[in-house]
Amino acid sequence: MAILTPRGEDFPRWYQDVLAKAELADNGPVRGTMVIRPYGYAIWERMQADVDARIKAAGAVNAYFPLLIPESYLRREAQHVEGFSPELAVVTHGGGKELEEPVVVRPTSETVIGEYMAKWTQSYRDLPLLLNQWANVVRWELRPRLFLRTSEFLWQEGHTAHVDEADAAAYARRIHLEVYLDFMTSVLAIPVFIGRKTAKERFAGATNTLTLEAMMGDGKALQMATSHELGQNFARAFDIGFLGADRAQHLAWTTSWGSSTRMVGGLIMAHGDDNGLRIPPRLAPTQVLVLPVKDDPALTERVSLLADGLRAAGLRCGVDARPGLSFGRRVTDAELKGIPVRVELGPRDLAAGAVTLARRDTSEKIVVPLDDVMTRVPTLLDEIQNAMYEAALATRDARTRDVTTVDEAIEAASEGFARLPWAAVGPGGETRLAQESLTVRCIQRPDGTIPDRDDEPDLVCLVARSY
Amino acid sequence: MAILTPRGEDFPRWYQDVLAKAELADNGPVRGTMVIRPYGYAIWERMQADVDARIKAAGAVNAYFPLLIPESYLRREAQHVEGFSPELAVVTHGGGKELEEPVVVRPTSETVIGEYMAKWTQSYRDLPLLLNQWANVVRWELRPRLFLRTSEFLWQEGHTAHVDEADAAAYARRIHLEVYLDFMTSVLAIPVFIGRKTAKERFAGATNTLTLEAMMGDGKALQMATSHELGQNFARAFDIGFLGADRAQHLAWTTSWGSSTRMVGGLIMAHGDDNGLRIPPRLAPTQVLVLPVKDDPALTERVSLLADGLRAAGLRCGVDARPGLSFGRRVTDAELKGIPVRVELGPRDLAAGAVTLARRDTSEKIVVPLDDVMTRVPTLLDEIQNAMYEAALATRDARTRDVTTVDEAIEAASEGFARLPWAAVGPGGETRLAQESLTVRCIQRPDGTIPDRDDEPDLVCLVARSY
Repeated sequence: MAILTPRGEDFPRWYQDVLAKAELADNGPVRGTMVIRPYGYAIWERMQADVDARIKAAGAVNAYFPLLIPESYLRREAQHVEGFSPELAVVTHGGGKELEEPVVVRPTSETVIGEYMAKWTQSYRDLPLLLNQWANVVRWELRPRLFLRTSEFLWQEGHTAHVDEADAAAYARRIHLEVYLDFMTSVLAIPVFIGRKTAKERFAGATNTLTLEAMMGDGKALQMATSHELGQNFARAFDIGFLGADRAQHLAWTTSWGSSTRMVGGLIMAHGDDNGLRIPPRLAPTQVLVLPVKDDPALTERVSLLADGLRAAGLRCGVDARPGLSFGRRVTDAELKGIPVRVELGPRDLAAGAVTLARRDTSEKIVVPLDDVMTRVPTLLDEIQNAMYEAALATRDARTRDVTTVDEAIEAASEGFARLPWAAVGPGGETRLAQESLTVRCIQRPDGTIPDRDDEPDLVCLVARSY
Repeated sequence: MAILTPRGEDFPRWYQDVLAKAELADNGPVRGTMVIRPYGYAIWERMQADVDARIKAAGAVNAYFPLLIPESYLRREAQHVEGFSPELAVVTHGGGKELEEPVVVRPTSETVIGEYMAKWTQSYRDLPLLLNQWANVVRWELRPRLFLRTSEFLWQEGHTAHVDEADAAAYARRIHLEVYLDFMTSVLAIPVFIGRKTAKERFAGATNTLTLEAMMGDGKALQMATSHELGQNFARAFDIGFLGADRAQHLAWTTSWGSSTRMVGGLIMAHGDDNGLRIPPRLAPTQVLVLPVKDDPALTERVSLLADGLRAAGLRCGVDARPGLSFGRRVTDAELKGIPVRVELGPRDLAAGAVTLARRDTSEKIVVPLDDVMTRVPTLLDEIQNAMYEAALATRDARTRDVTTVDEAIEAASEGFARLPWAAVGPGGETRLAQESLTVRCIQRPDGTIPDRDDEPDLVCLVARSY
């Protein structure tokens, strides 16, 4: 009896089943909100810690801006309020009475951060100003899906101000490559297509939006993070000016960039299989789980020693010796939770001086001498990290078809991604794709790198259905 | 010209000056809200990381519950809604239209966590359930003070459910001592009085509230964190029940405990002096700052080498060689920010093969051979950590007077804390103290430990004005 709906039978239902059975998240009491359960939150915490360290290494500093924003702030950037107003949660009462001016729960902190950037930026010496914030934001969601689209989500939003366009563009690209791209590939083990969004798909108010697009298990695309160049649009609306080295007053050039709990959804859908989650070792809250095959004092003692040794070696190691739960049930649970390696120990193993290492990614089992566990497990985790990336890349490439026309792209995108010359699409092609619920996910150079402009020669684009 | 209002002249104004000049926080655009600037947030991040590690070591796991809560949830626990309703921020519009049922922005997540605890708790095997959450909460504040009382603040709230009263009480006490008390004393270097709150001062719905009370620079008390035993009151309201080992249905016993960004205010007011912040080394985002006395390539090179060496030794080390800022101005800034040790290097030092180590806590300057810096600075940081605690303890003890009557306590509390027999106060005495804007901060045993009950013999209590 399958615990999960098979992916091939009903992918959305499989996703719901994984969320429930692996105890990742629950629906909140207010429609569209989400309770992130301890195991789901442990995954998010590990993503957050890694992304945070990368952001700091790129020179940005964390700050915290208020949840509640005067409604008038959002009106300052016309394109901004247009983009957000149907999504706003509005607070009309506070402190027991009606407020004189309603305040909104931030859908992003962009406007309030802009206000303070203007205050803190006097001279070119204050630039670049590189800020980041970890926070919750609220955007009312009528068709919620846990982790992917929820009325409240957790994210980081970076906001930076620079003396000129080149510095702003270089920083947005640096964040995109050193923080997001490297995190996705080397930690999440998820291959992503990088590139520019089309003018139609750009963030409201941005002059350029960089994206990372991953393929999910059903062939659809998920935008994993985005980085925006905002030109001087935002600085103009919020009056972020500075006295230049030339003693003249200038407007700053700004960027913004973000990633969110949506990455947890991406992790589930990119790597999950019919037995549950598969978490790459560098991310996994528990990398190794030691399981005694049955309840037996000799096994229990050996299991503790093994776990202590693995922890001392710096691995995140757990033990599942829960009484009253069969070995099979505990294995099923470890598989649901996607723990990369199980160390299984039974009485016969103990007699033979051996243990069984079970890989979650391939289901392979390897019997090794007890004495070799401490050296074998760390290398196995590295092997799994690489194998998961390679497997995801092979799957994605097998489902990405090179085509030459919009019609062919529409056909190919029923099963995955279509790649075709950007010149063959253009704004007209985008309208045609939209009728089929398809979008251009990104424009890139033929070698997969990010172009500087949309009109470079020989650009290609990726077309897909998306979350 | 003093940069800050002297503490002795106007303490509240000194506090505001420190917040502004050390770039810790700003008022937010909505009254009562706060912008936590990068340096203030770096302090909070270090508090958070340390407290989080302690909470995890005590066995609790992090989760995340929604910001928006149905109004009806708060009505479920009568004492709860009474305590919070004048403080609520109410969302009446979402997604572009009026909501059928208004939702509130969480003033605490207690009710929604209770709801899910009930769902997740079936059997005694599911207990204890030990949850913690890091989040923002909103309580409308009419007389805001940054970090101390703001309409939005950041905190951690722990919520646990247990099979019996003894286990709940033991866990609340464990958190209070191992997480809060040890963090305050060994990291913040702030001595605290621990004990029970009186029935009058207890958290609404709690059967017992444990507190930690610190003395600020003006002699007033600040409650640094609290831990509550909630008996079965909360479990009854939210139906947190379980099937016992005896096959009968039981109600759980719950606890809750929290600490917040208010600790940043406590840090400022407990350690700050007329030159600014003083941050204990174990907490400080920057422990050591290396400063060249003037702009000179030979100095700059040596300063970089020193800083690299100190960082390689695991210290959090910065360099301030900003051009266009005098040495004096850079020293003033380091003092404002409370950086524990400055390593100052001038041309004469360099010629003599020496550097000057300047302590922030005592203003002492120590000239040491350049070769000794790497060994001397780490031990100096340890000395400062201990000295700051001892100095704060001596100040507090000098301002804590033992008295025997409520009248004497009223007099003594004009300058600090009064300690007197709890039997001399009682509920009648509490009313009398309230008329003088004084409260019993905590009840403790004569040896300073936490009593099990309010009616133990020989208990004493601490009386003070408070934030």
